[in-house]
Amino acid sequence: MERITGLKAAETYRISQLKAPELEGKSVTVEGAVHKIRDMGEVVFVILRQREGLFQTVFEKTGFGGEKEIKEGCTVRITGILKKEARAPHGAEIHSSDIRVLSSPSAPMPLPVDKWKMNASLETRLDHRAISLRNIRERAKFRIQEGMVRGFRDFLYSQGFTEIHTPKIGAKGAEGGANIFKLSYFHQPAVLAQSPQFYKQMMVGVFDRVFETGPVFRAEKHNTRRHLNEYTSLDFEMGYIQGMEDVMGMETEMLRYMMGLLDREYGEELRLLDCQTPKIDSIPALPFEEAKKLVSQAYGRPVKAPYDLEPEEEQLIGKYAKDYLGSDFVFITHYPSKKRPFYAMDDPEDRRYTLSFDLLYKGLEITTGGQRIHDYGQLMRKLESRGMTGEGMEEYLEAFRCGMPPHGGLGIGLERLTVQLIGEDNVREGSLFPRDMNRLTP
Amino acid sequence: MERITGLKAAETYRISQLKAPELEGKSVTVEGAVHKIRDMGEVVFVILRQREGLFQTVFEKTGFGGEKEIKEGCTVRITGILKKEARAPHGAEIHSSDIRVLSSPSAPMPLPVDKWKMNASLETRLDHRAISLRNIRERAKFRIQEGMVRGFRDFLYSQGFTEIHTPKIGAKGAEGGANIFKLSYFHQPAVLAQSPQFYKQMMVGVFDRVFETGPVFRAEKHNTRRHLNEYTSLDFEMGYIQGMEDVMGMETEMLRYMMGLLDREYGEELRLLDCQTPKIDSIPALPFEEAKKLVSQAYGRPVKAPYDLEPEEEQLIGKYAKDYLGSDFVFITHYPSKKRPFYAMDDPEDRRYTLSFDLLYKGLEITTGGQRIHDYGQLMRKLESRGMTGEGMEEYLEAFRCGMPPHGGLGIGLERLTVQLIGEDNVREGSLFPRDMNRLTP
Repeated sequence: MERITGLKAAETYRISQLKAPELEGKSVTVEGAVHKIRDMGEVVFVILRQREGLFQTVFEKTGFGGEKEIKEGCTVRITGILKKEARAPHGAEIHSSDIRVLSSPSAPMPLPVDKWKMNASLETRLDHRAISLRNIRERAKFRIQEGMVRGFRDFLYSQGFTEIHTPKIGAKGAEGGANIFKLSYFHQPAVLAQSPQFYKQMMVGVFDRVFETGPVFRAEKHNTRRHLNEYTSLDFEMGYIQGMEDVMGMETEMLRYMMGLLDREYGEELRLLDCQTPKIDSIPALPFEEAKKLVSQAYGRPVKAPYDLEPEEEQLIGKYAKDYLGSDFVFITHYPSKKRPFYAMDDPEDRRYTLSFDLLYKGLEITTGGQRIHDYGQLMRKLESRGMTGEGMEEYLEAFRCGMPPHGGLGIGLERLTVQLIGEDNVREGSLFPRDMNRLTP
Repeated sequence: MERITGLKAAETYRISQLKAPELEGKSVTVEGAVHKIRDMGEVVFVILRQREGLFQTVFEKTGFGGEKEIKEGCTVRITGILKKEARAPHGAEIHSSDIRVLSSPSAPMPLPVDKWKMNASLETRLDHRAISLRNIRERAKFRIQEGMVRGFRDFLYSQGFTEIHTPKIGAKGAEGGANIFKLSYFHQPAVLAQSPQFYKQMMVGVFDRVFETGPVFRAEKHNTRRHLNEYTSLDFEMGYIQGMEDVMGMETEMLRYMMGLLDREYGEELRLLDCQTPKIDSIPALPFEEAKKLVSQAYGRPVKAPYDLEPEEEQLIGKYAKDYLGSDFVFITHYPSKKRPFYAMDDPEDRRYTLSFDLLYKGLEITTGGQRIHDYGQLMRKLESRGMTGEGMEEYLEAFRCGMPPHGGLGIGLERLTVQLIGEDNVREGSLFPRDMNRLTP
């Protein structure tokens, strides 16, 4: 009988391992996909793609023998002597003596994935997503996205947050609104979660501090460069706060940690995308009304929607923050109560406003958060004042009836955060397989 | 204008900090929920619940003054002198001089959350999930679950895997089957993902190694103690393998890392649940046919379903692995081809079987995995042999047409893994908010 003991010793090298000086002049074996072949007459360069990047291997034409067999998209195992070569990407190349084909494609690439820029439209790249991401700059975006999620989680673990997994299928959405996908659940009406809001609040009564990273679903009929109908939300909720500033402080510190992690461990990907992480010393916070006035004055734009920030207004606030406050980020606080959900804590000093905030990054809202109502009586009065009942949220309300600490939290749109960092204009660039009103595949 | 700089210095102590000897005899402030009040006549003990556990505070009755105001479920801020006390849970208690109420409940707890065991049925505990989890043993299950997910991710990061986020809403499920939830997506028919299988395979062509932790949805009409209709799947997929043993080896090593992490960082929770992590030196692997025969012989049970493992048979294999092979875990390999999906690699030595496996933990299947077909021609022939076409999976097939490395992977059911470790009998115990045929709330 066989017994599985764990990982076997690797027979092949990763690119980062090939930098070790003691390997110079030694025989090494590597595996990867054939990214590009350059036939130079006497020698043939075969550029391998591994998860860590590209690596150059060289064959003498006479010994190669496999011109017909070896083609772009093959996966291969190559053995040869590792030699220094200043002109090669990592300062070294493999002078190859042996190449074995592990798998072969049946068709050529529909896109030039070996090019620095593919010159293909977003729609084309999305239609062939599994192929277009083989371009090393395209895939680098999602390595950076990985780093963002890692940074979010690792920082929150260090702050005593517990990770939770809350259901995405639920009964009739108590938060309401028309933007909810409906489905039939064993002949019962059900909906897809538009946020883990209720659940994370309920779990603050259990774990004090919780977070979740997972999909949320919005049936919004907006086909803009800023909207997705399914996206990944980075949510946290924390108890025993003294005010929304504690939530904003946690986010500021988390973002600083996240950017530090990217600098430390995703430098190669940042370099591929010519991207610099923002330095976050502090983040300015402007009250909603003041922010509206400031940009109206600074850029001569009349205030149109008094209770909302229009997309163009957000962009101008972002510009204002950069021009006048020296920051890529800016918190907008004290949103009008009528535009926030019932659970938002009203500002005791002026009940027309809430102790809630958005965070704009380069003029795009990437976070909504705030302090929540924790007192049961206050929560019920707020519901009543909106003509709502507790129907459909009995278990949520029970948590409050049995006592909840003062708390607040936020949600971050991962795809928006990604595209703002890497400087893309369309949120779809930050989703592996975006879902919008017209796109259900791949 | 305000600027947010990050975390403020904490004014209060966490339980683990109160163990520092230099705090002995000092004035400290703590916050938490009032978990239990014990009135001893001259003194009153107020047991605080924090995320790290319970802590004892003591009030002289004369100075307390707040008997009516302070009740179970209040959240409070307490200041007092930290003193050694061998009889108190952490060897110390706070002799309190000041207590401030942060919030008050409006009703008593529907369940005795302050008890060691609540003596409430699973259904009752699920109906009041936000409350029942305030019991420190109930919530410990989900701290351990957090550790499992952390262990899975951290190990895979260290092995060069990239984390991905794939869509949960998709077009008509190409994997097929009746167990799919359907929804209307802007008047197009759509389905909920029953696994990230196709996406993670497509991404192996991009990142070589990928993983995802996220919800999956199964509309199975099974209301058993083993089934959930929504669960959290820990998935990985890896390229450049030499066989399914590489996947099994990766899982073995990952489980060993995960259990080590639990021992290192979740010892308090393991202790609360009287739970010991399994020692994983190696995991035995039995071919499907052999496993069936062995348990049939060992336990005198006739083989009924030749192509499947019945739940009772799985339990017996688990018992056999424990009794005869000294292992809580056992891999069952070489499942019959007709019971595995089309993308499973058939065994070249006997095409009636596949290079696929399940992992049983204490007699319950917690993992399904295997090597996948990577050659486009072979994949198309397998589809044809099953009377299937490539319709609805064009983009998946394109990845193969353009070349894919030899690869394999697996999916782990997080809730099942959790309950098997902590010794619970029902998978619902491992889900914060389970979804089954009858349960859509809370």
